[in-house]
Amino acid sequence: MKAIWLENNYLSYRCDVPVPEPEAHEALVKVSRAGICGTDLELVNGYYPFCGIPGHEFVGNIVRAPDQPQREGQRVVAEINISCDTCPSCLAGRKKHCERRTVLGIKNRHGAFAEYVCVPLANLIAVPDRVSDDAAVFTEPLAAALEIQDQIALDAKDQVLIIGAGRLGQLIAQSLVLTGCDLKVMARYKNQQQLLAQNNIQIIDEQAVSSRAFDIVIEASGSPAGFFLAQKAIRPRGTIVLKSTYKEDLQITVSAIVVDEITLIGSRCGPFAPALALLESGQVNPLGLIDARYPLDNALNAFARAAQPGTLKVILEVP
Amino acid sequence: MKAIWLENNYLSYRCDVPVPEPEAHEALVKVSRAGICGTDLELVNGYYPFCGIPGHEFVGNIVRAPDQPQREGQRVVAEINISCDTCPSCLAGRKKHCERRTVLGIKNRHGAFAEYVCVPLANLIAVPDRVSDDAAVFTEPLAAALEIQDQIALDAKDQVLIIGAGRLGQLIAQSLVLTGCDLKVMARYKNQQQLLAQNNIQIIDEQAVSSRAFDIVIEASGSPAGFFLAQKAIRPRGTIVLKSTYKEDLQITVSAIVVDEITLIGSRCGPFAPALALLESGQVNPLGLIDARYPLDNALNAFARAAQPGTLKVILEVP
Repeated sequence: MKAIWLENNYLSYRCDVPVPEPEAHEALVKVSRAGICGTDLELVNGYYPFCGIPGHEFVGNIVRAPDQPQREGQRVVAEINISCDTCPSCLAGRKKHCERRTVLGIKNRHGAFAEYVCVPLANLIAVPDRVSDDAAVFTEPLAAALEIQDQIALDAKDQVLIIGAGRLGQLIAQSLVLTGCDLKVMARYKNQQQLLAQNNIQIIDEQAVSSRAFDIVIEASGSPAGFFLAQKAIRPRGTIVLKSTYKEDLQITVSAIVVDEITLIGSRCGPFAPALALLESGQVNPLGLIDARYPLDNALNAFARAAQPGTLKVILEVP
Repeated sequence: MKAIWLENNYLSYRCDVPVPEPEAHEALVKVSRAGICGTDLELVNGYYPFCGIPGHEFVGNIVRAPDQPQREGQRVVAEINISCDTCPSCLAGRKKHCERRTVLGIKNRHGAFAEYVCVPLANLIAVPDRVSDDAAVFTEPLAAALEIQDQIALDAKDQVLIIGAGRLGQLIAQSLVLTGCDLKVMARYKNQQQLLAQNNIQIIDEQAVSSRAFDIVIEASGSPAGFFLAQKAIRPRGTIVLKSTYKEDLQITVSAIVVDEITLIGSRCGPFAPALALLESGQVNPLGLIDARYPLDNALNAFARAAQPGTLKVILEVP
């Protein structure tokens, strides 16, 4: 089959990758659309070691499911963490934090930048008819955005700042504004600002961000400068949610966190069901994030485009 | 009056400091006992700039209260943060985080290592008769320990690790063990271990601290190594409570916090009423922490003693 292959930080397009065979409890899925996200770019930059087919945001159709043949033909998206179900994290109900997890296209498991991908049936979630393929590709990052609301209580009185309005920041903004909170978003690029404005989301300039003013700050910029701005903007006893990872360690004044009793919360993958529900109802409409589309065989150019500063979502179309 | 004076990191004993005059809404308090804590040692080391009389853990008697003469004679302890009651933090109910606060013996206000100290009446809390002067000196640090339970929910199923069993770590241990949680404390010094054992609190060796094993880790060591051990010991989605400040910035791998969805919470001053209640009921008995007593005029030796590694509480007796 056709697939993108990552090995030693080198990305290639291959036509001769064998179609994978579903193992027990797995299904073979024909990919129709996939999205390139920041983690994919970081994999290429060697941020995590990974060898194989990358890609974890996708929609497709089950073509073979020996254990559940009734699901063949079903249109699906996939929860990307594949858990062992037996380690202490799994037994405690924290399957996304399984100590032995594999992660689609990220860790020890081939991903979706290919014609076919094998995924455990338990990880495949049916896509409602009203959600288009283009929208369904955003299920995984929208779920990651919604993880914030799984972790902290937000109410309409809260003054909330999102730092960064890239792929993830836009989805966080669209989901948080539904809570009725007083939301402001710091967006660096014109296209990001325009998309926020289209969605009636308030934009704030970096220079206008007051010190110690926000109840909640979401750091989604992926840049250390974003972290330090979050520390400036948060009020005493406020909460900073960290949605970005950073290649480098950060030099942090921990004493300020103690004296001001700040809470820092790391936030990663989130719940798929509410993400699909918001896409189905149209309350979150991610289509404005799509900056470009490329066929799978032009994926190397798609990656180059996705890596340009300010680019939102680049979609791979798999014939 | 007699007082300890700190100026340019130089501590001196003075006999000629004028007795302060209570301003509006203040009382003049005759100090009877005061405790030396880590912050006092840090002030001497120039960690914060401060000029004047240090000391914030104390018990004494109101000798003059022009606005509330009926309180004269009352035995009291003091909430150390003096708030303006008009800034946004105060109006939001976060008086301990008042943007214009002064702090007894720490920030822009003389403290209690003296015969007399002036304190706003609103900050003075009556000490129940059953709480001895020696015990009452611990009200402020015990309140700081109880702040943890104001910030996070603890239950009997939680596996909790306290790193550090110094002045504050001991009080945290004595208060957290009352929740019924599965508590282990890492104590570096023999005397600290003995005191924990006397209070039937489990001790754990640093080498025995498992990776990713604890639901909650309290960092009370004051050392960067303690912070990094906390990061090792915490399980995914667990909570690290930071009770220590550090002189230096720390180099932190923020990505690990994000991927494991760790919560970090800074924790400082706490509620006095439950602290006094625990001292009155005897459920927390701090007297075992007292390592040495010195009269006020020998305070320089008391500071030297308090600075010795492993020392718990050094008490100043004010005649």
